Amino acid sequence: MEKPIVVKFGGSSLANSEQFKKVKNIVEGDSRRRFVVPSAPGKSYPDDTKVTDLLYILEDLYKLEQDYSKVLENIKTVYNGIAEGIGLTIDLDPYFDEILKELGEGASKEFTASRGEYLNGILLSKYLDYEFIDPKEIIFFDTKGNFDAEMTYTIGAKRLDGVEKAVIPGFYGALPNGKVKTFSRGGSDLTGSIISRIVGASLYENWTDVSGFLIADPRIVHKPKGISKISYKELRELSYMGASILHDEAIFPVTSEGIPINIKNTNAPEDPGTLIVDEESLGEDSTWITGIAGRKNFTVIYIEKVKLNQDKGFHRKLMSILESYDIYLEHMPSSIDSISLIINDNVEEPMVKDIIQDIKIICKPDSIGYTKNISLITVVGHGMKNTSGTSATLFTGLAKADINVKLIIQGSSEVNIIVGIADDDYENAIRAVYETFMNGHKE
Amino acid sequence: MEKPIVVKFGGSSLANSEQFKKVKNIVEGDSRRRFVVPSAPGKSYPDDTKVTDLLYILEDLYKLEQDYSKVLENIKTVYNGIAEGIGLTIDLDPYFDEILKELGEGASKEFTASRGEYLNGILLSKYLDYEFIDPKEIIFFDTKGNFDAEMTYTIGAKRLDGVEKAVIPGFYGALPNGKVKTFSRGGSDLTGSIISRIVGASLYENWTDVSGFLIADPRIVHKPKGISKISYKELRELSYMGASILHDEAIFPVTSEGIPINIKNTNAPEDPGTLIVDEESLGEDSTWITGIAGRKNFTVIYIEKVKLNQDKGFHRKLMSILESYDIYLEHMPSSIDSISLIINDNVEEPMVKDIIQDIKIICKPDSIGYTKNISLITVVGHGMKNTSGTSATLFTGLAKADINVKLIIQGSSEVNIIVGIADDDYENAIRAVYETFMNGHKE
Repeated sequence: MEKPIVVKFGGSSLANSEQFKKVKNIVEGDSRRRFVVPSAPGKSYPDDTKVTDLLYILEDLYKLEQDYSKVLENIKTVYNGIAEGIGLTIDLDPYFDEILKELGEGASKEFTASRGEYLNGILLSKYLDYEFIDPKEIIFFDTKGNFDAEMTYTIGAKRLDGVEKAVIPGFYGALPNGKVKTFSRGGSDLTGSIISRIVGASLYENWTDVSGFLIADPRIVHKPKGISKISYKELRELSYMGASILHDEAIFPVTSEGIPINIKNTNAPEDPGTLIVDEESLGEDSTWITGIAGRKNFTVIYIEKVKLNQDKGFHRKLMSILESYDIYLEHMPSSIDSISLIINDNVEEPMVKDIIQDIKIICKPDSIGYTKNISLITVVGHGMKNTSGTSATLFTGLAKADINVKLIIQGSSEVNIIVGIADDDYENAIRAVYETFMNGHKE
Repeated sequence: MEKPIVVKFGGSSLANSEQFKKVKNIVEGDSRRRFVVPSAPGKSYPDDTKVTDLLYILEDLYKLEQDYSKVLENIKTVYNGIAEGIGLTIDLDPYFDEILKELGEGASKEFTASRGEYLNGILLSKYLDYEFIDPKEIIFFDTKGNFDAEMTYTIGAKRLDGVEKAVIPGFYGALPNGKVKTFSRGGSDLTGSIISRIVGASLYENWTDVSGFLIADPRIVHKPKGISKISYKELRELSYMGASILHDEAIFPVTSEGIPINIKNTNAPEDPGTLIVDEESLGEDSTWITGIAGRKNFTVIYIEKVKLNQDKGFHRKLMSILESYDIYLEHMPSSIDSISLIINDNVEEPMVKDIIQDIKIICKPDSIGYTKNISLITVVGHGMKNTSGTSATLFTGLAKADINVKLIIQGSSEVNIIVGIADDDYENAIRAVYETFMNGHKE
């Protein structure tokens, strides 16, 4: 039997009956699409409230012993509307009664939230005539609430043995005590990836409402080109910085197996979308740069100490101080007598001052200070690895746009260069980088 | 009374009587040159052995009870030759008898070595008719053998109070027990700097056999231009990498006082040489780049670990491992899932493998490897701070020369950019960087 394709549909792809019809067409368009992972219904219109959010409100009202009937009605309306629109005769009341019963017995917020996917899975399985499998039988978490890969890939995998076609709701699984545990927001992407690994999929199709990733943020760059192919590694470098179409952990289950992920558009299924593959599969057609991403609001702590690298405990002491404040170190460019600690935007100014005080006492720097409002921009592309002209093109572009470059870091990952600039230059810099590479030519 | 100028003369400036005559002319050319720090006589001809080296051999032979008369004769010949050439009537035998007496009483290697400067100081003081002051009365070390700034700048300073003109030999001082302690090789530069600070000099002239620093290594670049002005900070960034005309700690005593150092050529005293000043004194005429230096044979340990910066103990553990191996960390470029440790050329390959083994056990990376034979090149210049075009020019130059850039680090010191390349590309890269900046123009 041919290897299956796992298809995951996002909330907007399942927001209403019209979307359900598109989904059915897609699934039936390829007989290999045998495992389907649905999200909860998303918004049909921008002003809609998502079902998952309604479920959270329902749980709040219920526990506060407030009137929840209106909210429950809204949720029912969404599902009944879908059922009616796709011509499905199903009485959903027993399902809702069950939810209320569980709530009465003290069900968790995570249980309530997971019902969005659960009910959508029920509808979709009947509509497609696929077996319904509750992910509680497949996806497991340990007592600490961390994903339990070992149990999932043994016990969960056994459950899918011999299953021909199934709908498996996304977003959640089971704790050792059988209770529902959810992934973080967007976690249905992870479910699809885990299922892909379990069934040894040839491809994991992730259906959304966009035709894949764009080279740059469309809110900054006017109509940026799309990314047709990207490696797992490149995607990691990009996802880190910018808003993400795909949950940033979704690639991990499939990376080691080399299962490609195809980001597709439910509303434009003929678009090729973005294919996420391993490095080897990028082939010769890998473009010069793959994408540009960035983030504002970093803080840089700047330390001067003569011959700091000859004080062999210096770096360890610095790192211990950051650890004691529970701080993520993002980057650490250094020179002979100075070092910069780039920390992220979650660190408030008073804490920065406390950290500096500790560094003064413990590391005895000659001078120390900090700068706020630094943006980091990362330019990503396997194509730059063997092209000495990449940096030249990048910095020529930035120079022409009169952007003052404050930091440059390259050399750890071979697929990207990171530059630091003032927050005020951020949008101009992103545009300048995009322009320079789109107009440039790879040597 | 006008602030004095401290003048230090290197070994080649005092190698023979002809050089002594030039030194006298220089000292007498400006009445402010009131404090003179001599090195031991250097080589008159390339095949000569330096007096300091002869003194080391003398000490070896003496302690091994071997015949040392020939070596002693050679040393005497140097000094008597100088005395004779400059028309000085002096019987040096009592001085040599004293050295042999001290050796008989178990004098240290450092004592013996210091006699080169001592005897030169005796000759020069008589020749100039300046007071001779033994640096044992001025420059102090603590029991651990570290320079004792506090004692030097109080007790040593008192000794020079009211002294009008003096010759003070370089290179050594006294331990708390009164025994001689020397600085590391080239330490007379440090003596001159310390004396400059003590007497509140307006200028510290460091007389050598070259007319200052060159922008790039003349063994690589054909006739590079000279550096007319450089800041302390820029010099630090350059001295680190390349061979040095000035002891790399010599700037520290004068930096805080803002005393400029002028590197001058005894054989071409009219040449302006290189002036080392504080940043503020660089003025508007600071050129785009000041210098280029580099070093080969770095090792890069490359570590991949997904979301390493969210493992808050990761960096501290890495640093602790390096510390346990007594390793200097030079630089640490990082990306989202990877980090590179750049360590210097003193680390042998078996130790690199041991370090990697420890990192595997303690930090549990997804993958780890290392690359040898990486060169670092630093391009230094205050002028680049506010010039976004510097990087563009640099990388355009490297691209044209087809140099593959493996690492870039900028952002800690604002006065330099560091690039990493393969050792095989080193000379070509230095030439390419020199050419591109000499032919370019500052925007």
